[in-house]
Amino acid sequence: MTPAPARIGASLDEIDTPALLIDLGPFERNIAKMASFASANGVRLRPHAKTHKCPTIARKQIDAGAVGQCCQKVGEAEALVRGGVRDVLVSNQVVGEQKLRRLAALAMEANVGLCFDAAAQVDAASRAATEAGVMIGGYVEIEVGMQRCGVSTPEAARDLAMRIAAAPGLAFVGLQAYHGSAQHLPTWDERRDAIERSAGIVRDTVQCLRAAGLASPAITGAGTGTFRMEGTSGLWNELQAGSYVFMDTDYARIGGEGGGSYDEFEHSLFVLSTVMSTPTTDRAIVDAGLKAYSAEKGPPWVHGRPGLEVTGVSDEHGKIIVSRDAQRLRLGDKVMLIPGHCDPTVNLHDWYVCVRDGRVETLWPITARGAST
Amino acid sequence: MTPAPARIGASLDEIDTPALLIDLGPFERNIAKMASFASANGVRLRPHAKTHKCPTIARKQIDAGAVGQCCQKVGEAEALVRGGVRDVLVSNQVVGEQKLRRLAALAMEANVGLCFDAAAQVDAASRAATEAGVMIGGYVEIEVGMQRCGVSTPEAARDLAMRIAAAPGLAFVGLQAYHGSAQHLPTWDERRDAIERSAGIVRDTVQCLRAAGLASPAITGAGTGTFRMEGTSGLWNELQAGSYVFMDTDYARIGGEGGGSYDEFEHSLFVLSTVMSTPTTDRAIVDAGLKAYSAEKGPPWVHGRPGLEVTGVSDEHGKIIVSRDAQRLRLGDKVMLIPGHCDPTVNLHDWYVCVRDGRVETLWPITARGAST
Repeated sequence: MTPAPARIGASLDEIDTPALLIDLGPFERNIAKMASFASANGVRLRPHAKTHKCPTIARKQIDAGAVGQCCQKVGEAEALVRGGVRDVLVSNQVVGEQKLRRLAALAMEANVGLCFDAAAQVDAASRAATEAGVMIGGYVEIEVGMQRCGVSTPEAARDLAMRIAAAPGLAFVGLQAYHGSAQHLPTWDERRDAIERSAGIVRDTVQCLRAAGLASPAITGAGTGTFRMEGTSGLWNELQAGSYVFMDTDYARIGGEGGGSYDEFEHSLFVLSTVMSTPTTDRAIVDAGLKAYSAEKGPPWVHGRPGLEVTGVSDEHGKIIVSRDAQRLRLGDKVMLIPGHCDPTVNLHDWYVCVRDGRVETLWPITARGAST
Repeated sequence: MTPAPARIGASLDEIDTPALLIDLGPFERNIAKMASFASANGVRLRPHAKTHKCPTIARKQIDAGAVGQCCQKVGEAEALVRGGVRDVLVSNQVVGEQKLRRLAALAMEANVGLCFDAAAQVDAASRAATEAGVMIGGYVEIEVGMQRCGVSTPEAARDLAMRIAAAPGLAFVGLQAYHGSAQHLPTWDERRDAIERSAGIVRDTVQCLRAAGLASPAITGAGTGTFRMEGTSGLWNELQAGSYVFMDTDYARIGGEGGGSYDEFEHSLFVLSTVMSTPTTDRAIVDAGLKAYSAEKGPPWVHGRPGLEVTGVSDEHGKIIVSRDAQRLRLGDKVMLIPGHCDPTVNLHDWYVCVRDGRVETLWPITARGAST
């Protein structure tokens, strides 16, 4: 783990860069807004820890009303449970005896759930849970449009649910129904249509399960781009949104309801960088590149400085073109960058530097950074 | 730091995934080949540690004849010096008093160099070196075609070199002349032409320095895509290639001399992943996504398994399409992925799992992972 890049009380200018900043004002408003939506609509909120990888943030979401957390990896679940989270759903398949044993060990300390889309996974998890003498909650992941994991027919979902229900050490809890690729569809209407198609699949699956005498208490899914649709569907009763705490340019580019940009939540995550070279009047180079933010969704945006555009990204450099009307950048100037994609950006850093009104208020370790097994 | 993902002696099937593998055979041949080229051509080799971030690998390169290492960040230099490397060039600008003090402290234990492209940087480094009572080697970075950092005229280079030569605590060593964007130009001829243009700039700069009575003992630069050009130019006397130890798909896509693909070096770096879901006969999902490899150069390639193509990458998933003729993937199968871009992929991992003939021979910590300040 790298040393903390700032002292408590420091100003932005005193923070060593590159550093991952949380602006606490918008961050807290984002948490409150999603909690309030869930509460007003009578659905549970189980935010995704794959975004923040930080038990401190998880506890803040839970303090605001969330029922727990979801995550993708056993290593993330370990970090959450060790950090005080008592209810964790691994919203993913886990394959491998050692990983399943680690997950079963966590179930001694917390309420643990896991998703399945194949019988062999169910049998292996049942063995691990039985061996550890614990119960693991089992979810059937169903394919609702993203063509990734998940079973493809209501009948296959029913058969797998029955297998879970019958397996020692497992309890059938419900359906994992997440449409990941719908989250970034360009317009509100496209996203609404995609989730309506998903809802049809969920409805058929629930009916098929009911016909076999199986209740499905949890229907869990949804992300930051579509949570209003699942959350008001009358079908889903649990939301897994994660990015809403931070936002990124990938979400800033999609459309909101009735046109315009999607402004449900505020940017609260930034990569603070320093100008390290100003070779020409229209070019400035900052000290943050691919190892400080992910760029597979394009270069970061410059926050609050009109006329500055990141046009080139290399491993340790960001190239900023300064338009003729913009204020020039000087050596040592600090620039706040909005990452293209928040989740993989967070995974590059060991610390959140949390600022309020331009001062460092606190530092949070990103405990599950790199926890990918 | 995450736990080591394997035991010494384990087979590939026993390695926890995702894991970053080095295949030691090709890795050692790559190191030997570049060392042999440098030796045969009478140029120094100073491999770039920004690629591997690992003092163990640095020492192997030095044992094979390299004069030391270069790196981009003070944090990387710290990891190298603490790991036994005695000659480190930061081939980059460093801005900020605290960073310069850290670098000056390293100069008590190792031969340390630093690049400049502005007078203010020289003055600040001189203060830090003087304060610590050390000497730092100073290089003028010149712009040779990539339009990133570097001074733009021979006269500006001369003036900055004279400032370095006159600055207490600094010694003028030479020119940093690296053309990064030339490394991945699609054809050999395009790369050769680009480096010929760079050579013209280097030549003019050296003449301008000589006319002012300044010798420039070191001309350092070059990367894995163009090292033969700089190395046989009669101008550059030091090579900074880094990626050659590992290679990646971005290098595999460029052309070699006389057409064909660029096969100077072998792929030695892989992300080992496990099939965690096989929802349809033509689709398999592996447990490695954007948090196990960087994808800004496109999805990874599947190694040694014809008919498998990674068509989708999300945070924790890789989607593989299995062609009709290919052998089907089953739950639990291990798949070796060749990353699109080796440097930012390495920066996601804490450990190299080093294998030979399918067995784990050793584990090396990636000490400078995340060392971006």
